[in-house]
This record gives sequence, C-alpha cells and structure tokens, in this order.
Amino acid sequence: MLSIPLKRLADPTIGLRFQSPTTSSPDTLFDGKLICAQSRSGYRFSIDAVLLAHFVTPRRHDRILDLGAGCGVISLILASRYPDVTLTCLEIQESLVQLIHYNIHENTLGDRLQVVTGDLCSITGLVPAGEHDLVVCNPPYYRADTGRQNLNQEQAVARHEIKARLDDVVQAAAFAIKTKGRLAMIYPASRITSLLSTLKHNRLEPKRLRVVYSYPGVDATLCLVEAVKCGGDELVLLPPLYIYDQPGGDYTPEVEAWYHLETSNPSSVNLSAASL
Amino acid sequence: MLSIPLKRLADPTIGLRFQSPTTSSPDTLFDGKLICAQSRSGYRFSIDAVLLAHFVTPRRHDRILDLGAGCGVISLILASRYPDVTLTCLEIQESLVQLIHYNIHENTLGDRLQVVTGDLCSITGLVPAGEHDLVVCNPPYYRADTGRQNLNQEQAVARHEIKARLDDVVQAAAFAIKTKGRLAMIYPASRITSLLSTLKHNRLEPKRLRVVYSYPGVDATLCLVEAVKCGGDELVLLPPLYIYDQPGGDYTPEVEAWYHLETSNPSSVNLSAASL
Repeated sequence: MLSIPLKRLADPTIGLRFQSPTTSSPDTLFDGKLICAQSRSGYRFSIDAVLLAHFVTPRRHDRILDLGAGCGVISLILASRYPDVTLTCLEIQESLVQLIHYNIHENTLGDRLQVVTGDLCSITGLVPAGEHDLVVCNPPYYRADTGRQNLNQEQAVARHEIKARLDDVVQAAAFAIKTKGRLAMIYPASRITSLLSTLKHNRLEPKRLRVVYSYPGVDATLCLVEAVKCGGDELVLLPPLYIYDQPGGDYTPEVEAWYHLETSNPSSVNLSAASL
Repeated sequence: MLSIPLKRLADPTIGLRFQSPTTSSPDTLFDGKLICAQSRSGYRFSIDAVLLAHFVTPRRHDRILDLGAGCGVISLILASRYPDVTLTCLEIQESLVQLIHYNIHENTLGDRLQVVTGDLCSITGLVPAGEHDLVVCNPPYYRADTGRQNLNQEQAVARHEIKARLDDVVQAAAFAIKTKGRLAMIYPASRITSLLSTLKHNRLEPKRLRVVYSYPGVDATLCLVEAVKCGGDELVLLPPLYIYDQPGGDYTPEVEAWYHLETSNPSSVNLSAASL
C-alpha cells in the first residue's frame, strides 16, 4: 500500500468535552493538544496529511482553502500553527463534514475555520473565484478501478478517484486561487509526470518540489509540490524527505518534530495557546 | 554555475598514438584506459556526461543514438561498458565531429561506433526512423540569452539553446526511437516540469527518474530521466544521487566507482579488454 499509516495518533486518555459522532474515535495530534476526531471504520487520515501540512508555508493573514478536507486534519494543523490565517474546508461527504464541525468546536476554531459542503467539480457555486491565497489538497489518488474491495463508501471516495480526478482537483484549485496565489498538493511519486503536466496545463506553475521516501535507499512513494498561479517556469527541487530512518525504524528527527506543537511550529510565528 | 566540473579527468602522462587535433587535449577516463580527447579552449564535457552514461542500462545488441554527441564521451563510455552495442553519434559542429573520429580511432571502436554530421532539427534526412533501441542525450540546456559572453562558439552551441531547444531534441529522439525503445536524458532540475511535460507530449513516457544533488542537504541541480516510447504512464522515482559527500569533499563511493573501469562496468557484462 502506498500510503504510510500514522504510528502514534490515538490517545484514548484525552477526554472529549462534547459528544463526537458515535462512529468516530477521539484522536489527537500535538501530544493531545489538537483534537482530530475521525471515523472508526471509515476514512482515517494518513501521514500524507501531516507531511502536506508541514510542507506549506502560509503567509500572515492568508485565506486558505482545503479542497476535499476529509475530517479537516490539514486545516486543523494549519490553524494551530498559523494563528492569523483563515480557512475554508470544502468536503463532499456529509459524514466527514459533521466531523469537521465537531473538530472545529472542540478546538475552539469557529472564528477562523468554516466548512462548505459540496462537490469540488461544482466549485464555481461554492466558493468565490480567485480570492484564496493558498489552496491545500490531499486528493484521492488511487485509480477508481483498483483495490476498493475492502473499503466502505467513505474510505473509497476519500482515497480513490471516484468523485474527482486529478484534472478536476487542479481545475477547482485554479478557479479558487488568486493570481500569484499558491496550490500545495501531495501525490504519488509514480504519477509525478501527470501531476506536473496537469498543473502547468492549468497555469499553475510548479515552483517547489520535494520527493518523499519511506527511508533511505528505496524508491520514492510520494511527492509534495507547490505551484504558483501564473508563475514563472522554473522550480526548486528540495532535498529529499525521509519518513523513517530505516525499515521498521523510528521517524526521522524532521518528521518526529512535526508531532509536537513546540517543534512543529514555524519559528517566526508566536502561537497563542488560546487558539487551540 | 549549474554544471559541476569534473575533478580528475586530465592525465597528461597518457601518450597519444595518433596526432590529435592541435587544439585538443589528450584527456582520458577509466584510469587512462579510455581516451577522450576534447577541445582545450572550446567545449569540454562535464560530469553530466559521466552521470548519464552510468544511468542508462542498454540491453545486449542495442542500437544506440547519441544526440548532440559533443566529443563523443557518452558513446565512448557506453562502448567500453557494453561491448556488444552499436552506436551512432550525431553532432552538428565539424570541430567536434573531428574529435569523435579521433577518439573512435584511438580506442579502436570503428566497428561499433559511427559518426553522422548534421543538425538534429533535420534528423529525418540523417538517421533511419524508428530503428534505435536507445537514444541518449545531454542537450544544451542553458537559455540562449543567458551567460554566453565568455564562451567561444563551440562552447556556446554545445551548452546553450542556440541550435536546438528541448522541443527539438525530444522530437528528434521520438523520430529515431522504435516503439517501446527508450530515451535517456540529463537536464536541469529547475526545468523538470518542462522536461517531463515535453516528453509526455511527444509520447515518450517518463518511466525512471533520478534527482541529482551536489551533496546532501542542498537543492537539486540536475535530473536524469528515462522515457519509453508509447510506454504506460507511471514511473519509478529512484533514490537521490549525491555527487560529493559534502561541500568541497570527495566523490561519493557511487560516483567514484564510475571513474574506474573495473567498478564502472555493469556486473552482468563481461567486458573484453580488446574492445578498448
């Protein structure tokens, strides 16, 4: 399986102040400081979301759109790391929308994080055109005809190209981003040609690229890319990102730091504990 | 400067059996075993050629085309590493064509390596269509309008997009390669989007990609890509290639091995010393 599971998300000692949907589990990030309830048996986010949330570099007061937000994990991390950005989660599945609402409430983020229910293929009626500084997207990227046998519908839609394909996602992002605004995505390394070509075709010029390896010495699994709307045509290809130091080993120090709020935060941001 | 110079090519103790062009220097590779004369003041090959020559994996009896061959260095390395392949060097500059002829003669490779003088933009009249198993190309990749002030004409044409641009190179390769045949190129990492998009647009599907870093911890300088004519649309993104172990340091063991014939050779090939 391409997607790499999280190792240490669940923390059953964290109490819930409000009743979560009965089918969800009260998972947390940042040593319990950030609540991120997610389905017990449906879609559960993977390390992809954590990698993407730490690849992006929002600027102060950025207006951010999270396309296909799932349970909202990327937006929750960004809201906690960047206390002056505002975010919109767009999600098509009602069960996941309910989870986002719950997570917003639990983390007291209602003043900066909103939810829109809808299909990104119909984005023109859902969010304003060309007004977002940054779009983040961890899209479904398994082909619709592969490996769905053991998934429920929520998982299948979140992981497989059933409701949206790469073209749809990139076109939706291109609609929502302002000129010179940015799109950040994570995608399988094996499909990097389609990713870069589709971005370029939609005038979202790739400007920053980082290749993700499970550990040193093996082929890549994922790539992180940031594109700029109407940007120039050269990019920076960053040093590789290793998740583990060896097969069956620990997270690398870089990734380990992303699981703790004090080391996860950008140094230039003075986080307010109240924002959590 | 993007291109990384070679550290230890010149070896003035190596005697020449035949008179080289008076403006050339008698450089060698493989501890003096492979003669590769090149211009003293004109185009001199860089480590790009050595990296590309060790990225490709010719099959037995492959018919190989070296597009824009310069002094023939890539073909010379391949001829020495793979004793049953045949090669054609296509080169537009007459001064470099003379050097290739000299190098073929000095290395006794006349039965397997031929030269065609001409412009790859007019390739249809120069080589047969769809008959090559493998095309290798280290193309000019500096933009025509940048940094030419200090170069002579030979260097400028070899390094800058004066006589040929990426589109021209890829179209020429697509013409020469048989269906399911391969193209291998080295190109600036900063232009990877154009490279992959142009290949895909010409039905040369990228299948193998390796990113080249000067040393760990810095942004990439180059990328090596292998595309298959009419291939499927997924690729393998290989582990990164580091040239040096640290700033100002030694070659990494992987690259160091490529400068010695006994460690440069593919293990499956039983090289005949007579072929040198």
